[in-house]
Amino acid sequence: MKNYILQDENAVYFECGYSCDNLIFLNISGDKYFITDARYEIEAKLFAKNCEVVVTNDLVKATRKILKKSKIKKISFDPNDFKLLTYNSLKDNLDMKFVQKPNFSKLKRIIKTDDEIKLLKKAMSLGREGFERFSSYIQKEGLGKSEKYLFFKAKEFMSNTGEFDLSFDPIVAINENSAKPHALPTDKILLRDDLLLVDAGIKYQRYCSDRTSTSAVNKSLTFHRKQKFKTKLEQKVYDVVLKAQQIAISKARAGMKASQIDKLTRNIIEKAGYGKYFVHSTGHGVGLDIHEYPTINSRNDVIIENNMVFTIEPGIYLGEQFGVRIEDTVVMKNGRAEIL
Amino acid sequence: MKNYILQDENAVYFECGYSCDNLIFLNISGDKYFITDARYEIEAKLFAKNCEVVVTNDLVKATRKILKKSKIKKISFDPNDFKLLTYNSLKDNLDMKFVQKPNFSKLKRIIKTDDEIKLLKKAMSLGREGFERFSSYIQKEGLGKSEKYLFFKAKEFMSNTGEFDLSFDPIVAINENSAKPHALPTDKILLRDDLLLVDAGIKYQRYCSDRTSTSAVNKSLTFHRKQKFKTKLEQKVYDVVLKAQQIAISKARAGMKASQIDKLTRNIIEKAGYGKYFVHSTGHGVGLDIHEYPTINSRNDVIIENNMVFTIEPGIYLGEQFGVRIEDTVVMKNGRAEIL
Repeated sequence: MKNYILQDENAVYFECGYSCDNLIFLNISGDKYFITDARYEIEAKLFAKNCEVVVTNDLVKATRKILKKSKIKKISFDPNDFKLLTYNSLKDNLDMKFVQKPNFSKLKRIIKTDDEIKLLKKAMSLGREGFERFSSYIQKEGLGKSEKYLFFKAKEFMSNTGEFDLSFDPIVAINENSAKPHALPTDKILLRDDLLLVDAGIKYQRYCSDRTSTSAVNKSLTFHRKQKFKTKLEQKVYDVVLKAQQIAISKARAGMKASQIDKLTRNIIEKAGYGKYFVHSTGHGVGLDIHEYPTINSRNDVIIENNMVFTIEPGIYLGEQFGVRIEDTVVMKNGRAEIL
Repeated sequence: MKNYILQDENAVYFECGYSCDNLIFLNISGDKYFITDARYEIEAKLFAKNCEVVVTNDLVKATRKILKKSKIKKISFDPNDFKLLTYNSLKDNLDMKFVQKPNFSKLKRIIKTDDEIKLLKKAMSLGREGFERFSSYIQKEGLGKSEKYLFFKAKEFMSNTGEFDLSFDPIVAINENSAKPHALPTDKILLRDDLLLVDAGIKYQRYCSDRTSTSAVNKSLTFHRKQKFKTKLEQKVYDVVLKAQQIAISKARAGMKASQIDKLTRNIIEKAGYGKYFVHSTGHGVGLDIHEYPTINSRNDVIIENNMVFTIEPGIYLGEQFGVRIEDTVVMKNGRAEIL
C-alpha cells in the first residue's frame, strides 16, 4: 500500500511514534504528513518521526490541499476509522479513488516486533504489581465495601494512583454479578467467602496489559491461580476453567490455526459439561489497542506465528449464580506460548 | 422528522430513557425499535420506554430487516453518528434515501425540560461537593504532590470514590501548565503560592456538571471565587476574568444572540488589554453531553431562550506563565442567567 490516510490514534502512533486526539495522518509514497491543530504543534514537531507537521484549524481542508497537490489517483483508508461526515468532506469533488481496506493498521500490527514485546512484557509486569496492590488493599479493608467503591479502588491501585493509564475500565464483580462477562459495578457489598472476579490492565508507553483473576474472598485473598472456594460447585467450575487455561497455554504452538487454540480450552470445558456456559472467544490480540489481532475463536483460521501476542481467557458463566474467568496474555516464542 | 435512525448513546437515551454501548435505534413513524445484543436484553426490556427491543448478534442485519419491512422511502440520520463502514452496510442495496441531518439530536435537546433542569441542578450541586472534598484534601495533603497524582485525586473526590461517573477527565494544572486550555497532567509538583486551575464535573443520572476554578495555593485554599494570589500579575489577570464572568452572568438575557453573550465577557477582557489571550469561546451547552448547544462564541447568532443551559467560562492564558479560567454553568430562567 503506497498511499494511505489514517485517523485512529493508535494506528498513527504506530506509524510515527506520536499521536493526539485531533489529527489526520497521510502517507503518500513514503512522504508522511501529520496534520493537527495548534494545541499539539510543539509535541508533534518533537515526536512525530519523519513527518511533515501541518498545523491548521481545518484538518480536512489542509488534508485536501495536500491530496490535490500530490496528484495521486487513489488512496487507501479504513472505513472503521472515519465518520461518514469526515469521509464525505475529504473526498468531496476530489478526483481520487478512496479504497476501503478494513482494519489494515491492525492487520499490519498482528506480529509484534521484539521492541514491542519488551514494552508489552513491562506493561504486564506493572499490571501484575497493580493486582498485588489491590489484593493487599482488599485483605485489609475490602470487606464491607461496594463493587462501585472497589471498582474505583481497582483503578487507584492498578494505575498506581494516576501514574499509569488503564487499558480499559476494570471489571470488579462479586458472585452473581461475575456471571455477566462484561459486568458493570453495582452497590453489592463484598463479604467473606464471596467469589470475586477482577479483569484489569494498564498501559506502559501506550502498550496494554490484560489479566483476569477469580478469587475466593478470605483473609489470605490473592489474585494468584491457587484458590480455595467455599462451595464445591465454585471449586469444581474454577478447577475446570484453570485446567482449560493452563492446558491451552502449554499446548499452543506456532503453526496452529487460531481456531485450534480456541478448541484447546473449549474441549476441556465441553468435556466437563459446561460447554454452553463458555459464551465467548478464548482470546484476542493485545498491543496498542486492548483488542487487536489475532482473534482466538472457533471460526478464525489465521495461522498463529511467533511474536503474536494474545490473551487466553476461558470462562464459565452460571447465570444468577457466579462466573469464573482466568486470563493471561501470552507471546508466541520459539513456537510456544509464554505468559508475558 | 418522521423516520430516523440513531446510534449515539446519549441521543438514544434522550429518546427512550435507556442506552448501552452496542445499539441501533429506529423511529419509523412513531414505532420505536431498540436493537441490541443479548448482554443488554434484560435492561433494555425493563428500561427502554415504548420501544420494541430486538435482540440480535448482527445489529445491521436486524436493522435492515426492519427497514425493508417498513417500506419507507427515506430515513434521516446524523453523519457524525455513523462510521462509514456501518453506514455502507446499512444502506447497501436498500431502496431508501438516507437523509443527512447533522446534529439533529443535539438540536432537539437545545432547550431543556424542567425535569432535565432539575437533574442538571442536582449534578452541579454534587459537582460542587466534589470540589469541596478535593479542596479539603489539598489543604491537608496536597503540597508536594504531582499534577498526575492530584489528577487522580480529583477523580477520586469528584466521583466520591466511584459513586458518580465523571463528565470528562478533570484538568488539574499548576502555574505554566494552566496556560494550556486543555492541559494534561505532568510530573510537576504542587508548592505553596502556586496557582492551581481545576476544571471538573460529574454525571447525575447521566446529566453532566461542569465548573472551573483558579485558586491561590495556601493553607486556606478554596475553589471559591474570592482568591488572593502571590503576584500582582496573577491577581490582576484573575480579577479581570472574574469581572468578565460575573458581568456576563448578570447581563445575559433571553432574546440575546449567543454572540452577544460572548461579547459580554470578551469586551471586558479586551478592554483590559488581554483580548488576544482569551483564545476560546465563552461557553457551550451542557446536558447529556458535556458539549451541547448553544455554543456561546463570537460567530453564533442563535437566539438564547429560557431553559437553555450553558457554561460561561472566560479565560486568559499567558503562555509559559499561567492561565486563569473561571467557569459556571447557568440556566436561563425568567429571561436571566442563574448559576445552577
